[in-house]
This record gives sequence, C-alpha cells and structure tokens, in this order.
Amino acid sequence: MSKDQLNMGATIMEDNTVYIGRKPSMNYVLAVVTQFNAGAERVTVKARGKAISKAVDVAEISRNRFLKGYDLGEIKIGTENVEDEEREGGINVSWIEIVINKGI
Amino acid sequence: MSKDQLNMGATIMEDNTVYIGRKPSMNYVLAVVTQFNAGAERVTVKARGKAISKAVDVAEISRNRFLKGYDLGEIKIGTENVEDEEREGGINVSWIEIVINKGI
Repeated sequence: MSKDQLNMGATIMEDNTVYIGRKPSMNYVLAVVTQFNAGAERVTVKARGKAISKAVDVAEISRNRFLKGYDLGEIKIGTENVEDEEREGGINVSWIEIVINKGI
Repeated sequence: MSKDQLNMGATIMEDNTVYIGRKPSMNYVLAVVTQFNAGAERVTVKARGKAISKAVDVAEISRNRFLKGYDLGEIKIGTENVEDEEREGGINVSWIEIVINKGI
C-alpha cells in the first residue's frame, strides 16, 4: 500500500504538516492521527482561504475524539499574495497554522 | 443615525467583540475599525463554523489595510455543542476568537 493510500489522499509533508484541501474533514483528521502514531511529537495543520474553517474542525475533532490530552500549540494567522490570471498583482488570501503537541 | 446604522448591521457587543455572520467581510472590518476609533484598546473577532474563515479575513484585512501597526493578540479555538432539532445531543461546532490590540 502506498503512503498516499494510507493517508487516504491527505497530503502530509515531511515536517509533520497536514495541508487542508477539499476532501472531507475526517481524511485530514486521520492524517493528523497517523502522524502522531508514526512518532511525531507535534503536527501542524495548515489551510488557506475557505479551508480555514475546516482546519479548525480538523484540529478540534483530532483533539476531542482521538488525541485526548494532547495540547494545542501556537495558532498563527497571516496573509499571502497568490498569483491570479484575472487580477494584476494577484489576490490576498488568509492562512492559518494550528500546532498540536503530543504533550508530556 | 442609530448605532446599528453606523455599524452597517454588524453586531458589536459592549465588550468590544465583533461576531462574524453572513454579511460581507467589509461590514465586519468596518465594525472593528469603528470600535477602535471609539476608544477601544482591544477588539475580539469571534466566529463559529463556516464563518471562521471570514473571521480570519476580517482580522487580516483590518490589520493590513486600516490598522497598521496594531498587534495580533491571543488566538483561541474551541468546540461548542449547539442544539439541533434533528440530532439528539446537538451538534459540535468549532469556534475561533482573534484578539487585535491597539498596541503602544
């Protein structure tokens, strides 16, 4: 079974980051839990634009249902300029990063 | 002109909280800026569910365009149980709170 099949299609980067996209929230929750089960001490959930709400859902569902006792780490927000064919200068898109720590 | 007209319909609570709903982001940005102009030292932007993405947009647009030099304060996320007619036990909804500080 490939890494991608194991993660049910959710992208996991090498630095224990789970990027939230258009798949159902539970795919990303599983990606987070899988990272911890593979030995990660912390996992960062990242999203841009409308996926930000889903990132918060993923962090909350992970912690409340599967990772009880794990701590929320730093939560950062920011703005990124993204190229857009129809808009000179690109468009500004908000992003969020939510860190979950394994704790002690 | 009533307070509500001034705020273009965005709800402002007395403790300088702006609740994000279904209106366009700029209505809430104006509500945030209005609170600071009225003397607030800090404003909290709150949202639940799908409005969470818009809350991050509102905080980012406020800071980048209208409140340059203001600081992001604490960002909290959590889960709230909300009554639902169709689901016994209600449904869990994620929320976010973003504090913006006037700074020094």
